[in-house]
Amino acid sequence: MTDTYSRSGASPPASKTVEPTYEGDFVLDGSLPLECGRSLICPTLHYAVYGRLNAARDNAVLVCHALSGSALVGSWWPEIFAPGAVLSLEHDFVICINMLGSCYGSTGPGSVNPETGEIYGPDFPLVGVRDNVRAQAHLLDSLGIRRLRLVLGGSIGGMQALDWTILQPERIQRALIIGVTPLSAMGLALNHLQRQAIQHDPEWSAGRYLPQRPPRNGLALARKIAMISYKSAPLFDERFGRNPNRSGEDPWAANGHGTGLVGERFDIAGYLDLQGSRFIERFDANAYLAILRAMDTWDPLRGFASPEEAFGRIKARLSFIGISSDWLFPAEDVRRFADSIRAAGAQADYREMTSAHGHDAFLAEQAELVRLLQ
Amino acid sequence: MTDTYSRSGASPPASKTVEPTYEGDFVLDGSLPLECGRSLICPTLHYAVYGRLNAARDNAVLVCHALSGSALVGSWWPEIFAPGAVLSLEHDFVICINMLGSCYGSTGPGSVNPETGEIYGPDFPLVGVRDNVRAQAHLLDSLGIRRLRLVLGGSIGGMQALDWTILQPERIQRALIIGVTPLSAMGLALNHLQRQAIQHDPEWSAGRYLPQRPPRNGLALARKIAMISYKSAPLFDERFGRNPNRSGEDPWAANGHGTGLVGERFDIAGYLDLQGSRFIERFDANAYLAILRAMDTWDPLRGFASPEEAFGRIKARLSFIGISSDWLFPAEDVRRFADSIRAAGAQADYREMTSAHGHDAFLAEQAELVRLLQ
Repeated sequence: MTDTYSRSGASPPASKTVEPTYEGDFVLDGSLPLECGRSLICPTLHYAVYGRLNAARDNAVLVCHALSGSALVGSWWPEIFAPGAVLSLEHDFVICINMLGSCYGSTGPGSVNPETGEIYGPDFPLVGVRDNVRAQAHLLDSLGIRRLRLVLGGSIGGMQALDWTILQPERIQRALIIGVTPLSAMGLALNHLQRQAIQHDPEWSAGRYLPQRPPRNGLALARKIAMISYKSAPLFDERFGRNPNRSGEDPWAANGHGTGLVGERFDIAGYLDLQGSRFIERFDANAYLAILRAMDTWDPLRGFASPEEAFGRIKARLSFIGISSDWLFPAEDVRRFADSIRAAGAQADYREMTSAHGHDAFLAEQAELVRLLQ
Repeated sequence: MTDTYSRSGASPPASKTVEPTYEGDFVLDGSLPLECGRSLICPTLHYAVYGRLNAARDNAVLVCHALSGSALVGSWWPEIFAPGAVLSLEHDFVICINMLGSCYGSTGPGSVNPETGEIYGPDFPLVGVRDNVRAQAHLLDSLGIRRLRLVLGGSIGGMQALDWTILQPERIQRALIIGVTPLSAMGLALNHLQRQAIQHDPEWSAGRYLPQRPPRNGLALARKIAMISYKSAPLFDERFGRNPNRSGEDPWAANGHGTGLVGERFDIAGYLDLQGSRFIERFDANAYLAILRAMDTWDPLRGFASPEEAFGRIKARLSFIGISSDWLFPAEDVRRFADSIRAAGAQADYREMTSAHGHDAFLAEQAELVRLLQ
């Protein structure tokens, strides 16, 4: 089934992966105080770098990944490195750091809590976007990087990029913030339903599930709910329409043994089920919940007296990119968000990417994104 | 919490309910052959009537209800009966019939299968929209009603209304079809995820759950997924925004005991949870699945050689109503659907209801709908 969907173009063709110059761990020397009041003791940040830091140490770029991404930006965003694209392996020193709370090498719910000697699991604290930025700043310090020529990211990666420009204004020259605003009520709703899909799975066990018995159905359903918000209705119509599942199922056969099971699906259902089953092979439920919560709680104005106080700190030149068919972070919302930041005193322009791919377009149509950014 | 949400206007103010003239059961004498190849033996149709049939028997109107509606149209659509509105208790004889597969009195998964003496449960056959129309026609025959001055409905009620004009063309003078087209791929996706939410509930038991132990979490989650598709993002932003749940919860407190549970919710999450818990008090999971499947499989062209062959049969004058903020059945899709029916030879106009309420607007903003229809 995988191949069938790939051939149809439901997944973008895999571009040639760009290999990192180095991939490794940075362990923070001491504890990281968190906005929630707790702290992480000596957390690990897993990161990858591409290219070489120049003698002037002024060619560093930070890429911030989206929800289920990893430090290996060369694997999930390879076209950004194409000749003449956004980043250059020859001229740039690109750093990408796995988010705290994730399951790709940085400290997260699957890590051992040094205070208890046990896996954090559901006790992993709320590590917000700002907490990530502060931790990442320590890593850059350790690499001797004082300034970033550019910080960029889409979705929760864009949240991090903007927070970098607010919290570390002297360090950032330029930021590209793609397909993101603080989550709308609809976005919060979608995350809430994903969370409940996981938490209602009988294997969830209040987050203390065994590694060999994770809440697979719940995490898969969460991913499928997310997928509908990452894509667009016109794209689904074009690719799947009302066709029966391409493996030869018959939706009209749902008769007398439950309804809508495998064997009776429409094509879109087969596609979503495949996305769900792929995802549970590569992601952890507690990590998923941890990052959803970071996304939910992101508010760049929180703790500031006014937008001017928050956004007026920014020294970087910001570009916001909205995606025409994105309904999770609608382009119009991104444009208004950029306007509000400009009104508060920062340099911020807005560009729009025309794509049927929805929120996912920054990953699914990288060549289009590159054209817009050039 | 109910009152708090009601005061905020999250639910429309309850209008005065219109009482039926009669409410009762019609039992079909014999079996109802179904499109799926099975049949229902002597199925019951629960129905309600409002007003009185005149001597000429030419004042009958059929209202078709939406997914979770009942025969009591005077309870869920009372403003349609307001003086000078769409229907008149003085001049019309209004009939509303509970769909087969539902749990409000007509034969459905909770009924006893006369062939086995056992409750159908998940063995309830696929009863499509056309099957419902054919069953309803028998009921009208029994009432001595040969022609309907009007048939109308929203969502799956609109599917029934259109099928009436195709399958019983001589009987229908006029049809109002609100907020509906054959389900798009996105609509099929949303139904698929709702189905899985139910089927992954440990209490689901392959549909053979005990009445006292239904798949409550699963059905509630299904309803919440549906709710986000019934409403609009701008409405959610206006009503809930990024506010913490109004009962005084703190989303930033999600810390160390799972995440996003009660006590840590945003307002939209509290609202959705309330909708879910209300729904499971009034609806059955197998009935929900049965009607989802009728909705999924509805295709007015199925079995016809061409749109002309199907829609060319229509003798009624059709009006399609799209809702500006509906993303489950986008207004533009409804307009195109009406165009395609007109192109195939039927009389069909299109009107648009401007509302922020999304798909739900035909129930949530009845006064607006009435203004449009007058």
